[in-house]
Amino acid sequence: MMARPVVALLTDFGLQDHYVGTMKGVVLSVCSDAALVDITHHIPPQDVAWGALELAAAYEYFPGGTVFVAVVDPGVGSSRRGIAAEAGGYYFVAPDNGVLTQVFAQTPPTLVVDLQERKFARHTISRTFEGRDRFAPAAGWLARGAALAVLGPAISDWVTIQLRQPRHTGDGLVGEVMRVDRFGNLITNITRERSSRLNLIAARVEVADASVPIVGTYAEAPAGELCALFGSSGYLEVALNGGSAAERLGVGRGGVVAVRALP
Amino acid sequence: MMARPVVALLTDFGLQDHYVGTMKGVVLSVCSDAALVDITHHIPPQDVAWGALELAAAYEYFPGGTVFVAVVDPGVGSSRRGIAAEAGGYYFVAPDNGVLTQVFAQTPPTLVVDLQERKFARHTISRTFEGRDRFAPAAGWLARGAALAVLGPAISDWVTIQLRQPRHTGDGLVGEVMRVDRFGNLITNITRERSSRLNLIAARVEVADASVPIVGTYAEAPAGELCALFGSSGYLEVALNGGSAAERLGVGRGGVVAVRALP
Amino acid sequence: MMARPVVALLTDFGLQDHYVGTMKGVVLSVCSDAALVDITHHIPPQDVAWGALELAAAYEYFPGGTVFVAVVDPGVGSSRRGIAAEAGGYYFVAPDNGVLTQVFAQTPPTLVVDLQERKFARHTISRTFEGRDRFAPAAGWLARGAALAVLGPAISDWVTIQLRQPRHTGDGLVGEVMRVDRFGNLITNITRERSSRLNLIAARVEVADASVPIVGTYAEAPAGELCALFGSSGYLEVALNGGSAAERLGVGRGGVVAVRALP
Repeated sequence: MMARPVVALLTDFGLQDHYVGTMKGVVLSVCSDAALVDITHHIPPQDVAWGALELAAAYEYFPGGTVFVAVVDPGVGSSRRGIAAEAGGYYFVAPDNGVLTQVFAQTPPTLVVDLQERKFARHTISRTFEGRDRFAPAAGWLARGAALAVLGPAISDWVTIQLRQPRHTGDGLVGEVMRVDRFGNLITNITRERSSRLNLIAARVEVADASVPIVGTYAEAPAGELCALFGSSGYLEVALNGGSAAERLGVGRGGVVAVRALP
Repeated sequence: MMARPVVALLTDFGLQDHYVGTMKGVVLSVCSDAALVDITHHIPPQDVAWGALELAAAYEYFPGGTVFVAVVDPGVGSSRRGIAAEAGGYYFVAPDNGVLTQVFAQTPPTLVVDLQERKFARHTISRTFEGRDRFAPAAGWLARGAALAVLGPAISDWVTIQLRQPRHTGDGLVGEVMRVDRFGNLITNITRERSSRLNLIAARVEVADASVPIVGTYAEAPAGELCALFGSSGYLEVALNGGSAAERLGVGRGGVVAVRALP
Repeated sequence: MMARPVVALLTDFGLQDHYVGTMKGVVLSVCSDAALVDITHHIPPQDVAWGALELAAAYEYFPGGTVFVAVVDPGVGSSRRGIAAEAGGYYFVAPDNGVLTQVFAQTPPTLVVDLQERKFARHTISRTFEGRDRFAPAAGWLARGAALAVLGPAISDWVTIQLRQPRHTGDGLVGEVMRVDRFGNLITNITRERSSRLNLIAARVEVADASVPIVGTYAEAPAGELCALFGSSGYLEVALNGGSAAERLGVGRGGVVAVRALP
């Protein structure tokens, strides 16, 4: 018996409206057996880069064959394409605007197709809600076992966005805050890999007017103290044990974070 | 093989409390096979009209046979009835307070019953949480295949609410904002059908002190500019390309929106 | 045929990040057949007591055998243990920090184990996200039918927290607000059982500078009036018919609520 197909959704739709539920209705109309999972729907509106990073942080924890639908889509209704892709044993359905950039950077796709085949979309495609009329049905068909290649012609010129990268300095790295999570942790674009050339013993992380040590986990910092650590997705984050680093420091997305290592 | 039954929920319960999860536990206790989908739980507290419109915007995108549970219920614990209905090949379970008004306007029900049969409810029915004790089990039984008629006697005097309708003016329509969505789009009660007698070429939509053109999709408006369009549910909405029309205009629910067409 | 296994999640992770979705991906990677249900993810950050009460309010409404994963975990990454337990025909997976206190008070566990067996965790365990790497896989294995005893050695010294209890006064009880729900209802720690010795006929509930009657359901209070009642989980709550008692009274978590009964 095949494992039950999984369709996982990531959007900037929020949950206050019927939009996400309606997309799920469409998926189940095509593939009633699918298990539906929300990654998040609280990507800041139209923030493609944020969506790209969140998707990349999550997808590898899903069963092989999972179909991801990622709709952060400032260009809905324009001529930008819709695409579907296979990478690392997973499927992805999204507008062709770079929201798959970070996934593809980690796992190059084996096939990317332009969603031109109308019979895998709804009969009428709203120009303001392609998530419902184009992306959800395509995901449903993939979950149901349709071959990726039947959804449209292969392409090789998909859109990639430039995700901001930290830069090396004389004694370390300067990066920035890419995301503030629910706990007020400041998650940067500085990865453990990028830091591997640095001597992080006794390194300090500087953010706003604070200079904080790098620890192994939140609990190593005294209660009420700031610390920095490599978090669950491999990014350096600044945290406050028992509180919100974002509030304490008054720092948000785009804030500068520097690592100063020992020479 | 029968398709897996779907139970879709719409409430004003929010997600901060255990209420929605508990209802789902009850549904699964009756019908462990059900696929559970949230339409939204962020209907403004006790706003039956808003709930009625959101449900109507979503239900037709679900598989035939889906059971919808719609609980926006200012009269919980009072003598208002609970009802279940069949319309358009779907099932609906709700308090009898008009939350099904717009669905029934689009698709007249074939049968509506008063949920009197206690054996399809929980043994004890909380007077403050009928969603858990009466509506969720009824939905579970319908999902499991119980006939609608066994849930209680047929009725024909269900409650209907008056949803505010736009009115015709000399050169157009005057309606109002029924809902503000996550993106700050102002969704009005003006439908494409109601507008069909108007010559919309070069029509203008007036809201607050702005006069905006009608376009086909958001992307047709220049970035940072307001526009109006018929959205994914068929209602005229006022949008800001790349931002929130609600914020820009300072307009919210109940705000007046006029369409002025060419003669 | 066995009923489909259910895994129900309660965390303080919120929904803005990928964290909950990622945990679900891990559960499905172990047990693709599981039905996933959210109880809530909006427990106030690191508020173990609040989580303990919400879990206890919900679990009995789920099918027997349901696996609950409760992650409110200020000590993530520290030496605190992870545990799994069986109580009342249900399974629980959680950090050993007292988040199961109220469930165990209602239903003493038959077996509690320390999650030491690494083969039921992910290969690498992040020190900041044990929900993903330790608790979610353990829940998946239990859902898949693994015996509780294989997850680790039995323990009897699990952590319990002191949940604040109301105290008896000359003519009644003095308790406090434990939770404010979405509707602004003030949910106290005063239970119907604790009140059973009181003559509640004509009793008054005092909160801030208001004195309100005890009614059977919200609808018994005139619109715009405050009332008190025993809610759906058995706790006394203060409500405002058609509005938010929390806003009206300016009272939140920890606010004092007194019941003054007739002698």
